[in-house]
Amino acid sequence: MSTLDIVLNDLVIANRILANEDIVDAYGHVSIRHPDNPDHFFLARSLAPEFITREDILEFDLEGRVVGSDKRAPYLERFIHGGIFEARPDVMAVVHAHAEDILPFGLTGATPLRPVIHSGSFIGSNVPIWDIADTFGDTNLLVANAEQGRDLAKCLGKNNVALMRGHGFAAAARSLIEVVRMSVYLPRNARALQKAKVLGGDIKYLSQGEIDARNRGYSPYSVETWRAWEYWANKAGVGHLATRPDQAKK
Amino acid sequence: MSTLDIVLNDLVIANRILANEDIVDAYGHVSIRHPDNPDHFFLARSLAPEFITREDILEFDLEGRVVGSDKRAPYLERFIHGGIFEARPDVMAVVHAHAEDILPFGLTGATPLRPVIHSGSFIGSNVPIWDIADTFGDTNLLVANAEQGRDLAKCLGKNNVALMRGHGFAAAARSLIEVVRMSVYLPRNARALQKAKVLGGDIKYLSQGEIDARNRGYSPYSVETWRAWEYWANKAGVGHLATRPDQAKK
Amino acid sequence: MSTLDIVLNDLVIANRILANEDIVDAYGHVSIRHPDNPDHFFLARSLAPEFITREDILEFDLEGRVVGSDKRAPYLERFIHGGIFEARPDVMAVVHAHAEDILPFGLTGATPLRPVIHSGSFIGSNVPIWDIADTFGDTNLLVANAEQGRDLAKCLGKNNVALMRGHGFAAAARSLIEVVRMSVYLPRNARALQKAKVLGGDIKYLSQGEIDARNRGYSPYSVETWRAWEYWANKAGVGHLATRPDQAKK
Amino acid sequence: MSTLDIVLNDLVIANRILANEDIVDAYGHVSIRHPDNPDHFFLARSLAPEFITREDILEFDLEGRVVGSDKRAPYLERFIHGGIFEARPDVMAVVHAHAEDILPFGLTGATPLRPVIHSGSFIGSNVPIWDIADTFGDTNLLVANAEQGRDLAKCLGKNNVALMRGHGFAAAARSLIEVVRMSVYLPRNARALQKAKVLGGDIKYLSQGEIDARNRGYSPYSVETWRAWEYWANKAGVGHLATRPDQAKK
Repeated sequence: MSTLDIVLNDLVIANRILANEDIVDAYGHVSIRHPDNPDHFFLARSLAPEFITREDILEFDLEGRVVGSDKRAPYLERFIHGGIFEARPDVMAVVHAHAEDILPFGLTGATPLRPVIHSGSFIGSNVPIWDIADTFGDTNLLVANAEQGRDLAKCLGKNNVALMRGHGFAAAARSLIEVVRMSVYLPRNARALQKAKVLGGDIKYLSQGEIDARNRGYSPYSVETWRAWEYWANKAGVGHLATRPDQAKK
Repeated sequence: MSTLDIVLNDLVIANRILANEDIVDAYGHVSIRHPDNPDHFFLARSLAPEFITREDILEFDLEGRVVGSDKRAPYLERFIHGGIFEARPDVMAVVHAHAEDILPFGLTGATPLRPVIHSGSFIGSNVPIWDIADTFGDTNLLVANAEQGRDLAKCLGKNNVALMRGHGFAAAARSLIEVVRMSVYLPRNARALQKAKVLGGDIKYLSQGEIDARNRGYSPYSVETWRAWEYWANKAGVGHLATRPDQAKK
Repeated sequence: MSTLDIVLNDLVIANRILANEDIVDAYGHVSIRHPDNPDHFFLARSLAPEFITREDILEFDLEGRVVGSDKRAPYLERFIHGGIFEARPDVMAVVHAHAEDILPFGLTGATPLRPVIHSGSFIGSNVPIWDIADTFGDTNLLVANAEQGRDLAKCLGKNNVALMRGHGFAAAARSLIEVVRMSVYLPRNARALQKAKVLGGDIKYLSQGEIDARNRGYSPYSVETWRAWEYWANKAGVGHLATRPDQAKK
Repeated sequence: MSTLDIVLNDLVIANRILANEDIVDAYGHVSIRHPDNPDHFFLARSLAPEFITREDILEFDLEGRVVGSDKRAPYLERFIHGGIFEARPDVMAVVHAHAEDILPFGLTGATPLRPVIHSGSFIGSNVPIWDIADTFGDTNLLVANAEQGRDLAKCLGKNNVALMRGHGFAAAARSLIEVVRMSVYLPRNARALQKAKVLGGDIKYLSQGEIDARNRGYSPYSVETWRAWEYWANKAGVGHLATRPDQAKK
């Protein structure tokens, strides 16, 4: 398989995993930067992630315009992806979703969403809350144009995740496997923190040193990381699509 | 398919979606106004929504009387539907359900159920709590006659949703797709708000301007709305019944 | 079918419903009084309710002794059933279970478990907490002999449900369908109440008049009650076993 | 079947049960001491527990080195098992997992995780919290060498369960069936306690006498314990592998 084939297959897998793990429902999406053209990215047409196949994937430029003549409707909020890919050359993959258990943390700043469990470390030590109203006033809350996408990317800054007030989150990572993993464990980290609040006392967050140590040890094709990707893919019914580039046939 | 065929098919789909999304169990129901006769509406006979087919749908007048000679038992609380259709000519579809996570908000007025997430915007800025005891004293809490249905409709007023104390909710919308969507996201909005309470601090609700902006942009057959309807219908096993009127064969 | 056949079939259905609705897991059981001999009752042998068939049902006397020569192991806690059937001639069916969401209410008396939702009304206005330690000191918390069963029945008194501290609940009703329905809605009522506590303000419980009104209207073979029984039985894969006595073939 | 065959079969069952009961996901593992060589133990290779078969099980010494020439990757955290087996000759089986609902109790010491429900009694009266940072400073939180495994075992001491701050738990028991049962009911006990906190008032924990009474009555092949093992195994699709040593064919 070519690199591009693997990338597109992986994007299908990512969609199915996010659906099966309840990170997305009819809404929410995941993209990957074009491996040969950093100014383009791949994202499905407007369809629930659970149903996405290779045929549903479109190519976009950073302004969110479809590349080519495909007339099928794209996601309204493709500008989230374009904005982040433009601002962050280091980012290879982006997720936007409404995973339910992160929503409370976008409604009040009183308890910041920070890593409390080791699998949550990849969200990073700072998760800013982007409120679309700060710049754009009363909107329908959707990121509906490139300007709004850029504003979100600006709030995200060098962080890995931004909460979007009353809406969801955007996550960015250096690989697709990492952004999926981050998205799956983000709500788990949120639940652990939310429930610890009920128990009282001071909550022990991961230290910056711990977050850094975990980050240094990360590799998408390490035994430990691949184990989860393979597991989630199998549970989502697409295990047969999973390919390790280092083991791919030529 | 005729308009009436599409309407009845859609009502079957709505029943199955509400069951599959845990909005109804053995109890709870959904109705649609007759497209040609605004003084009539369609509602299933007394059966759990998960099992409903076209053959189970009955026609009612606004007093909750079955039209025709069908002797099968109707839902006891059909008066909820009659009352709302009578009071609100703009309403085309009604849901009554006991979705668990909205129940706490009907037990105490201390935290009003208002939109905090964008998908919850359609419940509107004011969700009144109807307490059957206020007018009718000690009852079995069921809306068991036209007078009680009218009292509930009066409390609902121009709003989209009324909570029913110790019982559930009634939702009303200008289309079936909208009332289903509202019913699915109502408990999600409730959960986000309930959990944010634990996090402390001031909760940021959607502004009136945001609610209005979302409402203006709504259309049951927009790409974005249809995507969810199709997704939920597929998950509920009735995707094959879904028809877009603008694409229906003559 | 004979009355006894229907009773035993119904007991199988009850076991399967309670398993499928997460009221019991490997533990928990449901019994019915012998229709012809009020001093005997039927209860399965020691087996997870999800797997129980007609062949697994044993007959017991009120002391918890197996009637006949069946050597298969009975449930250790059959004395819960014997104790309640002995003390309460009006009771026809008993459930004992550990349904998770009722457990917190047995750990602290600060928030009594009382009906807040209409489907929870059947638990009655008073749900006492039985603490086995009050009479028996340090035990393994199981109701392991007739004396303990009688002590629990004494605490239950004329009520429908008793919580068992650190353990679960016992529910008693005038019919099998009612005790199953009560057991399914008991945790739902508990969850609604528990979550309302987080919202603040005074909680509105069902009034005694409302509880009485619902109780008066109850009949196991009413259209509304049968609808739920049939629904739960179908979901549990035993809908084909459900028989209405008034419609049973001779 | 030989004793070793039964042990390895049981280890497969344990893996599947823990996966099916949501105690482990892609991560988490369960081990059993070698029945003939107390200085060795069995643990699967690095694979999600849901997929583990007999062929995936490796043999280790207490330093966490694979016995034999198998080159497949082992779990990174096998040192948890080695450390506990070394320090505790009475322990025959160990589980390490990240079961979500125990995580909050590792984040704050304000509410100790102690038994409140009878099925939680086996976790014992004291569940220490091990914080890897106390001895090892900033790490990636994983137990990645024998020294860290020993430090965890030291914190565990004579107890049955240790929470691992920001990470999960380690449980140790005198039999595989017991450690699985303990692991399944640990999060249930945590949820009951966490929810009781919301209800207010003093929480009634199991007394030391009750914990002792339950412990004395425990036997892995008693009717009551076997019932759960068989139930969980059947639900996980491996009921056919379950064998009672006292009933095994020679």
